[in-house]
Amino acid sequence: MADNLTGVAILGSTGSVGTQALDVLSGLRHRFRVVGLAAGRNVELFDQQVRQWRPSLISCSEPADRSRIQSDAAEWASLEEIVTHPDVDVVLIATTGKAGLGPTLSALGSGKAVALANKEVLVMAGQLIRAAVDAGSGSLRPVDSEHSAIWQCLWGELPEYVSRLILTASGGAFRDRTVEELAGVTPSEALHHPTWSMGRKITVDSATLLNKGMEMIEARWLFDIPLDRIDVLMHRESIVHSLVQFADGSVKAQLGVPDMRLPIQCSLTYPDRLPVQRSQTLDLGAIGTLHFAEPNFDRLPCLRLAIDAGKRGGTYPAVMAAADETAVEQFLDGRIGFMDIPRVIEATLNAHNGTASPDLPAILDADRWARDYALATSASSQWSGAALPATAS
Amino acid sequence: MADNLTGVAILGSTGSVGTQALDVLSGLRHRFRVVGLAAGRNVELFDQQVRQWRPSLISCSEPADRSRIQSDAAEWASLEEIVTHPDVDVVLIATTGKAGLGPTLSALGSGKAVALANKEVLVMAGQLIRAAVDAGSGSLRPVDSEHSAIWQCLWGELPEYVSRLILTASGGAFRDRTVEELAGVTPSEALHHPTWSMGRKITVDSATLLNKGMEMIEARWLFDIPLDRIDVLMHRESIVHSLVQFADGSVKAQLGVPDMRLPIQCSLTYPDRLPVQRSQTLDLGAIGTLHFAEPNFDRLPCLRLAIDAGKRGGTYPAVMAAADETAVEQFLDGRIGFMDIPRVIEATLNAHNGTASPDLPAILDADRWARDYALATSASSQWSGAALPATAS
Repeated sequence: MADNLTGVAILGSTGSVGTQALDVLSGLRHRFRVVGLAAGRNVELFDQQVRQWRPSLISCSEPADRSRIQSDAAEWASLEEIVTHPDVDVVLIATTGKAGLGPTLSALGSGKAVALANKEVLVMAGQLIRAAVDAGSGSLRPVDSEHSAIWQCLWGELPEYVSRLILTASGGAFRDRTVEELAGVTPSEALHHPTWSMGRKITVDSATLLNKGMEMIEARWLFDIPLDRIDVLMHRESIVHSLVQFADGSVKAQLGVPDMRLPIQCSLTYPDRLPVQRSQTLDLGAIGTLHFAEPNFDRLPCLRLAIDAGKRGGTYPAVMAAADETAVEQFLDGRIGFMDIPRVIEATLNAHNGTASPDLPAILDADRWARDYALATSASSQWSGAALPATAS
Repeated sequence: MADNLTGVAILGSTGSVGTQALDVLSGLRHRFRVVGLAAGRNVELFDQQVRQWRPSLISCSEPADRSRIQSDAAEWASLEEIVTHPDVDVVLIATTGKAGLGPTLSALGSGKAVALANKEVLVMAGQLIRAAVDAGSGSLRPVDSEHSAIWQCLWGELPEYVSRLILTASGGAFRDRTVEELAGVTPSEALHHPTWSMGRKITVDSATLLNKGMEMIEARWLFDIPLDRIDVLMHRESIVHSLVQFADGSVKAQLGVPDMRLPIQCSLTYPDRLPVQRSQTLDLGAIGTLHFAEPNFDRLPCLRLAIDAGKRGGTYPAVMAAADETAVEQFLDGRIGFMDIPRVIEATLNAHNGTASPDLPAILDADRWARDYALATSASSQWSGAALPATAS
């Protein structure tokens, strides 16, 4: 850009990560210019953002909403047009679900730095995304706190000496409950996360630990390392965001107060580290104690289901993610129980005839099939607790 | 070297770090050749080492001991000759006290990589060593576990974004004792360190926490950062070896089982990370809990004395180190009590007329003066507990 500022596009600007990214950027106007913004259906907030940030290019998911956005200075554009625009240097993909898939591939194809907050993109199409990174000049930067931690621990290290990645997990809302207690938890209980403030779906996924399984698959493709060299470590304080173990036995960890703005900013400013406005300094002496434990796969079967889907590869991770999204919606709508979520996912995975190296249309087909199957399965009268086939453990 | 191996010289090969370095090198004969070895007065072990490793150049501190070393293949040489020899790429300074000072400056002057285990070198003459690094092509690599941790956390980071260094301290042998109990501890109690197996003097220095103060001064010069941006954090498990806090609030830590061979190897193989023979893998899930606390400066005044000496700079750190070495010898010989160690150091510092930017002769003069003063002070009849001037706290 002529003004020497880094051009940023944010897809999903009204979501949890999108709004925090704009919060971060409000302190970095001397370094960044918001070139493009895209939102879903939160029209009121998007209208505010467009007026505040005055991007050149805007997009919203429903054309009917356009008339409600005051967009004198902005041009309506497709997501593809936004992420490939010459003025854009960094693209933040902060959408949810499969909406980020096409734009991520387009941005990488145009050689952009892609800050990827949408983990479904890598879960559904990790192989395709990895190939796009390896083939071109585009790059991926993690936004999730765990993956940002691993990324930071890898700076300056030679890839051949990385032996294991260790993702920490707070354990979510129900980490202290028994299997029996879990069956009766309500949607409102599931939406209260002990350490992180996040969106609804990811908060439930944290409670089932399926989110951690998706993060393992995400790490597998972000860092190009096999799943059997990625571990999960329970860590309730969410202070150690993740760790890397090296060939000589040395382990590096990244720590910080739980504040998503830190990894979000890091994904935008890399390799620079700039002060984060109104952030707290980590004080380990005051915290006093950090706890670590092995995960209990039996208690929360979603983690194992996600790992298995990741190891089978092909369309299975996309099916797992789609079945989970459907099951979580059904749970939040009160139609199925909390422990039915893994049952719906497992039934859908078992019914799926997978493809080994799917292209994008095959992945999207599998996604649609899995949503339909999971919805029908959730609605069937079979779901009545003890009569169900037991979930693998 | 013609054989394409990295040439190593070890000064202090029969000491704790020296023997562990040779243990590490015994698994790395495909990459390293031991060109030079130098020892103190452990003639029997040195004779074994010379026969096993067949170095080209050898040295021992007492010429009279030479006849007891079977040295057919080796040539007797001075420390200066060893560290500046063209076949030597990496010099490990594993001596104690001021013996490493001259060789470190010579090795840096010859453009060698210097793995520095002798912290007195930087405590006594940090300003001179720093100037030698900045002026030439030589480089410093830390060997202490804490400094190795910080070094590893700094790889790939831009120096301008380092905000604080945080050195962890196990607290040594007496971390759970009251001030009253500390007065009566015996030398044999002081030599039992809870997590690290080290030499006698450094084990006592760990118990007084003076060692941590020396490490702060060491870090100040190794990483060229002011002392007021270096903190100490108590951490009894010695798993988190140290941490670095960056401008954005992110904190990186290096962790591992307490095993000095890991940082020793890292200092030799950098930037490669190779498996360490017979090493344990860190298992945080099995360890379960890590503890952190602010240090209690009142309980163990040596830490404050060392920081104050570091901040005064000039000849004061050398005087502090010399007074400590003398006082620890007197304590181990049963002539003064454990809590007399800080009293001797403080009395010596108070009596010293310092020089602001001393050259090497001035530093060595201050060292000699401090030893004499501390010895006389230790021997004086003044030391009788309550009658003494109270130590600053």
